[in-house]
Amino acid sequence: MRLATIRVGDTTRAVRLDADAAVELGAADLVEVLRRPDWRTSAREADGPSHSLGTLDYAPLVLAPEKIFCVGLNYRNHILEMGRTLPEHPTLFAKFSRALVGAYDDVVLPAASGEMDWEAELAVVIGAPVRNADPAEARAAIGGYTVLNDVTARDWQYRTLQWLQGKTFEATTPIGPWLVTDDEAPAESAELSCEVDGETVQRADIGDLVFGPAELVSYISRIVTLMPGDVIATGTPGGVGHARKPPRYLADGSVLTTRIAGIGECRNICRQEVR
Amino acid sequence: MRLATIRVGDTTRAVRLDADAAVELGAADLVEVLRRPDWRTSAREADGPSHSLGTLDYAPLVLAPEKIFCVGLNYRNHILEMGRTLPEHPTLFAKFSRALVGAYDDVVLPAASGEMDWEAELAVVIGAPVRNADPAEARAAIGGYTVLNDVTARDWQYRTLQWLQGKTFEATTPIGPWLVTDDEAPAESAELSCEVDGETVQRADIGDLVFGPAELVSYISRIVTLMPGDVIATGTPGGVGHARKPPRYLADGSVLTTRIAGIGECRNICRQEVR
Repeated sequence: MRLATIRVGDTTRAVRLDADAAVELGAADLVEVLRRPDWRTSAREADGPSHSLGTLDYAPLVLAPEKIFCVGLNYRNHILEMGRTLPEHPTLFAKFSRALVGAYDDVVLPAASGEMDWEAELAVVIGAPVRNADPAEARAAIGGYTVLNDVTARDWQYRTLQWLQGKTFEATTPIGPWLVTDDEAPAESAELSCEVDGETVQRADIGDLVFGPAELVSYISRIVTLMPGDVIATGTPGGVGHARKPPRYLADGSVLTTRIAGIGECRNICRQEVR
Repeated sequence: MRLATIRVGDTTRAVRLDADAAVELGAADLVEVLRRPDWRTSAREADGPSHSLGTLDYAPLVLAPEKIFCVGLNYRNHILEMGRTLPEHPTLFAKFSRALVGAYDDVVLPAASGEMDWEAELAVVIGAPVRNADPAEARAAIGGYTVLNDVTARDWQYRTLQWLQGKTFEATTPIGPWLVTDDEAPAESAELSCEVDGETVQRADIGDLVFGPAELVSYISRIVTLMPGDVIATGTPGGVGHARKPPRYLADGSVLTTRIAGIGECRNICRQEVR
């Protein structure tokens, strides 16, 4: 089952994406859907107003999740090729929901930064409240998966030791276009890629994650209750622009394509903010 | 004017604290109040049901703010005494709202940590949407001030380079008891202190902040729109337990008192989580 949040006039609606139409679920966004204890059944059976697939305007998949956790340094090959040892614990940082944009929205390159960089990622979306979860409980709490690009202002990320300020610029993080529910998503292996203007700049397999989705949910749930709609961006592989010699960044007009086989694809045009 | 969020049965209410009573404002919490464009006037003139001051049960001042920003390394004397130079940019990290507890609630010492430490802080609460603000605009967007203790799991904070996981344990961060609106709060100078079991462990003046409230609002507003109810915890001075030799941490039954002269005081008992 694929679920999304679409814009309809000045409002948004959660929808189920069928082969021939998008069917409304009676909620303003996916977070509201996932808060229903029986969301899998009610979403499957929903029979609301429908929309033609060709005209859909995708909003950010989740509009105001309670929490967005991001993970750093989580692709095995990339860590090893950098000569580092595999970490004992996941590196976690935050993003706030104002950073999110829809799967085909423009990504804003803020006037304040000159070093906006790509980070293609698999994102986990939580489907049930979960606290102090063992791996099986953690897996059961996953609602599904989506595509995210943790577009980062490198100059701001490295101004201080804490990365947050480079990670949460307004309207910089594509997420979507839809949730693929856990029962239909690729489980162990899928190609993740990022293209800039048609050139592949990142390519990896999500099976190469050091800390996989259930392990991350379990770990974070020891810190705080994860709630329906919460997002965990699981980290990015090698190939980011900042590590290139010379470094390469996103520019006004850059076309950013973020894709995970069997899950989905975001395609965003970068627009320089003018002030 | 002092505003708070109190518990009434299974609900919460925003109130104005008068000399003789707490008067309801017709909102579930302070965030909802601050979202009203005319909140200063409407809060001043509110004439709802009232509660006796002696029986108030203070909830976290804000229940679900969109964002909580925290600042590290922001007291001048402490930085200089550590032999460091003053930073050019504020160090920012995040906290999620599930970490918050009321001013007199228990602070949970999680089973997963053995190194829970205190960090008394002045917190700024935003009173109007603000983006790309100059210092005057930033000052005007401040709704007021409150008291916060950024209680931290040092073992988790330093597991990786990013501090978030030590900073957002569930039910660890007292905030309140009330907002003192910007027009009545001490402007330039006020004593901030932290006591553990009656012993003063931190004492500083908020005038010693490297980046003051308006400067922080201006800085953060270049990254993302600050919204009514958003919190900025401005950082803690020297005297934390982790830096002592030997280190000292909070224990089951520890009484944690966090006070800012002219603003307010939180008094929390620490309770070890049993699992």
